[in-house]
Amino acid sequence: MADPRFHISSGAKHLSELASLVEGELQGDDCQIQDVAPLDTATINDISFFDNIKYKEDFMTTKAGACIVSAQMVEFAPKGCALLVSNTPYKSYALIAQAFYPVKTPPTQIVQSASVAKTAVIGEGCFIGAGAVILEGVILGANTWIEPNSVIGDNVEIGQNCRIGAGTVVSHTIIGDYTRLYPNVSVGQDGFGFAIDPAGHVKVPQLGRVIIGDHVEIGASTCIDRGAGPDTIIGNGVWIDNLVQLGHNVKIGNGCVIVAQVGIAGSTTLEDYVVVAAQVGIAGHLTIGMGTRIGAQSGVMRNLPAGSEVMGAPSVPKKQFMRQVATLKKLTQPMKK
Amino acid sequence: MADPRFHISSGAKHLSELASLVEGELQGDDCQIQDVAPLDTATINDISFFDNIKYKEDFMTTKAGACIVSAQMVEFAPKGCALLVSNTPYKSYALIAQAFYPVKTPPTQIVQSASVAKTAVIGEGCFIGAGAVILEGVILGANTWIEPNSVIGDNVEIGQNCRIGAGTVVSHTIIGDYTRLYPNVSVGQDGFGFAIDPAGHVKVPQLGRVIIGDHVEIGASTCIDRGAGPDTIIGNGVWIDNLVQLGHNVKIGNGCVIVAQVGIAGSTTLEDYVVVAAQVGIAGHLTIGMGTRIGAQSGVMRNLPAGSEVMGAPSVPKKQFMRQVATLKKLTQPMKK
Amino acid sequence: MADPRFHISSGAKHLSELASLVEGELQGDDCQIQDVAPLDTATINDISFFDNIKYKEDFMTTKAGACIVSAQMVEFAPKGCALLVSNTPYKSYALIAQAFYPVKTPPTQIVQSASVAKTAVIGEGCFIGAGAVILEGVILGANTWIEPNSVIGDNVEIGQNCRIGAGTVVSHTIIGDYTRLYPNVSVGQDGFGFAIDPAGHVKVPQLGRVIIGDHVEIGASTCIDRGAGPDTIIGNGVWIDNLVQLGHNVKIGNGCVIVAQVGIAGSTTLEDYVVVAAQVGIAGHLTIGMGTRIGAQSGVMRNLPAGSEVMGAPSVPKKQFMRQVATLKKLTQPMKK
Repeated sequence: MADPRFHISSGAKHLSELASLVEGELQGDDCQIQDVAPLDTATINDISFFDNIKYKEDFMTTKAGACIVSAQMVEFAPKGCALLVSNTPYKSYALIAQAFYPVKTPPTQIVQSASVAKTAVIGEGCFIGAGAVILEGVILGANTWIEPNSVIGDNVEIGQNCRIGAGTVVSHTIIGDYTRLYPNVSVGQDGFGFAIDPAGHVKVPQLGRVIIGDHVEIGASTCIDRGAGPDTIIGNGVWIDNLVQLGHNVKIGNGCVIVAQVGIAGSTTLEDYVVVAAQVGIAGHLTIGMGTRIGAQSGVMRNLPAGSEVMGAPSVPKKQFMRQVATLKKLTQPMKK
Repeated sequence: MADPRFHISSGAKHLSELASLVEGELQGDDCQIQDVAPLDTATINDISFFDNIKYKEDFMTTKAGACIVSAQMVEFAPKGCALLVSNTPYKSYALIAQAFYPVKTPPTQIVQSASVAKTAVIGEGCFIGAGAVILEGVILGANTWIEPNSVIGDNVEIGQNCRIGAGTVVSHTIIGDYTRLYPNVSVGQDGFGFAIDPAGHVKVPQLGRVIIGDHVEIGASTCIDRGAGPDTIIGNGVWIDNLVQLGHNVKIGNGCVIVAQVGIAGSTTLEDYVVVAAQVGIAGHLTIGMGTRIGAQSGVMRNLPAGSEVMGAPSVPKKQFMRQVATLKKLTQPMKK
Repeated sequence: MADPRFHISSGAKHLSELASLVEGELQGDDCQIQDVAPLDTATINDISFFDNIKYKEDFMTTKAGACIVSAQMVEFAPKGCALLVSNTPYKSYALIAQAFYPVKTPPTQIVQSASVAKTAVIGEGCFIGAGAVILEGVILGANTWIEPNSVIGDNVEIGQNCRIGAGTVVSHTIIGDYTRLYPNVSVGQDGFGFAIDPAGHVKVPQLGRVIIGDHVEIGASTCIDRGAGPDTIIGNGVWIDNLVQLGHNVKIGNGCVIVAQVGIAGSTTLEDYVVVAAQVGIAGHLTIGMGTRIGAQSGVMRNLPAGSEVMGAPSVPKKQFMRQVATLKKLTQPMKK
């Protein structure tokens, strides 16, 4: 069970209630569910989920009172475990876990040690934590939550129901609604723009902004530089993990997923629903087509058409990458006698 | 046009005035220029620049009133666009953009919520933002600008006209003049030094400092460890991007450029004017010769002579890397029928 | 000599005293030693160490009054240099340097500008720096040192003699004793958990914690996400460098070493004493066996048995990697005439 010091449950629910919440089909008897839990530690009072085939054995032996599964996996269910059959078990789990553990928002308050400029406009229901600094002309929408020791620069606009993590620094940026920045994020600082010169590189003023959409999540210590002239743009519903680097003028389409430690160089565009796995590098001035999937640690040096699936550095189509790996393996096998 | 909430223009200028500022040759009539703008969005009142051949079409169709170009590109200019011909168009653009958008420095002030030790020496014209912490014995030169919630450790020295970003932490460090650290940078913390021991690794005290020159820029969330005994040294005019890791005792020569997410292991030296592209790793205890250029995502495991150009992991001369890629491609091509 | 503004020496010591401190064998006359120093800058008053064969020439010509070496290297010692022979010269140096430069702890104090919740329990001897924020229900053990502008979230527990770096943010976490977080670290934020959905990815509540053992060091700007349901766990005596990413549910065994910019994806387990070199990526849901060593920039996509030694992306046994590199080199050598 989740540690109640950190996670506060909303209390037991009927399984039938959970089934209707996620529009899943209940197989088995209705019962009281106290909590969500992983397959291997769940008890008769818990609901769990089975979505990754790696954990099939855990599913077959789980003690969970109920489990969310896809129709294909029903046959592996242990006896006595009620099933909640769903086309999207992980999504169903997400919704049920959200019901058990709703986000606990802080009270409306500007903590005394926060520093809020007189020209800032703070929406109703906002919380501004200890040591947070809100500079001149900032506009915060209703119910936005600014965590301690973050810094919001001059004239930044942040929409409603956003959350800005502790130690995070934002400048030259417009943010939509329901968007969340994790701790120690840096958004809106100057892009890496200068003219190389033997007498001393010459700084190019970075005259754009960062525009971030609604329902975006941006991981800890991620850095998003503002545009050099055009803006750096993050669409709606984008998920960005920790320690990601986005250069100036980068455009990230709606629904993109960018995993940890990725770097995207300046002026590159990701169309909607691109998935970039961890530690990938993408060169500058490229267009990555809609729905493209880029494997971990790849290096992308060319435009990619919509629906591409690539791996490797330099990146190649996934099948070709597999052949490269196999070929290299064959070439380097020690002689057999 | 740049968003005036974030960027304040110094107002219109004569094109002839801009030409003499950058020592460029004016081809066409003098006129009033209101602003700088990218080729594709510029209007008759703007000056733009053309420097990357990728954007040739944008140049040929630009509506800009004036454009900075090299002599070779003059023939592609659209009718009616005045030209400012320069050997270094991007540098000329940089200087003109600086003229339109001079850096707006804050007023001389120690904001009340800043915490400044009594033994700290604060130069004339400094600005110290809300929540910034200046510890004992710190020395700040004139006109230095400390942004909110940054922390300057005991006895750190920072020269004149520097700017330390919000949330940045500096200790055990001496910084020159006109140097800028972006937000959430960490400089001067202990290097990763310990003796491996099964009974518990044994910490090696890190007894050096970080010495940073003049006119250096250090990107957001970059980490520079102090020396273990010798110092970690960053020369003059060095540009370092976001999320870069520099280990203890690293020495970076003058004018080097280090792009995002690079890691340089302990005790490695970069001579002057080395360019390290994004996500490169360089092993420890190496010397990288003057003017070397290292391609993105390379892994450098050996010393490199001056003027090297390498790519790949492990890195090889650029031509050899190209052959590797081509060979691998040929070996893995599916049979044609 | 170390800069006394940043490093305070405890004063001269007899060489014989140092020998007995590290249980080393003294070869040569006893004398007074003033300081530790690198081989190339040491003087007659200093003790140095020789441990990396790269620096043999520096050893042979050192002016150090005494030097710590292994028995095998004694023959290369310069005349007049007293020797302190040790099986573990680097560890011996570490202990001697610690004796010369003991950690200078701050006085017991809660600096006035810190913000400490009334429900927080602060142990004896703690120091809480300017602008630090200690939220509700936090428990700090004795002699723990919270640096300026760090943020300790609700109900976090930190043991005795810990040190939390400036700008570091901790939530949902339990930390043991003698553990140190460097500046700008982020620990305990939500893991990267969501169900992909074309209508908008659905957040999965992250219901676990981060559990960190004793004598752990965590580098600057490193990010450690809390568990999704299980906990993220860091064992005892683990050393983690800067800019490392540890996903949710990751388990790091005792004594592991993780070098800068490594990324370890969710639910992967490292058994004890694994060494992961810089910029490595390890995929999720894997088990890396005890004592495994992973070369820099490797990409690990499979479970590894105890004692593995791998390199490359995708990673292969070290010998095979060497053959891959050699084969590729042979295949791409230009024809000789």
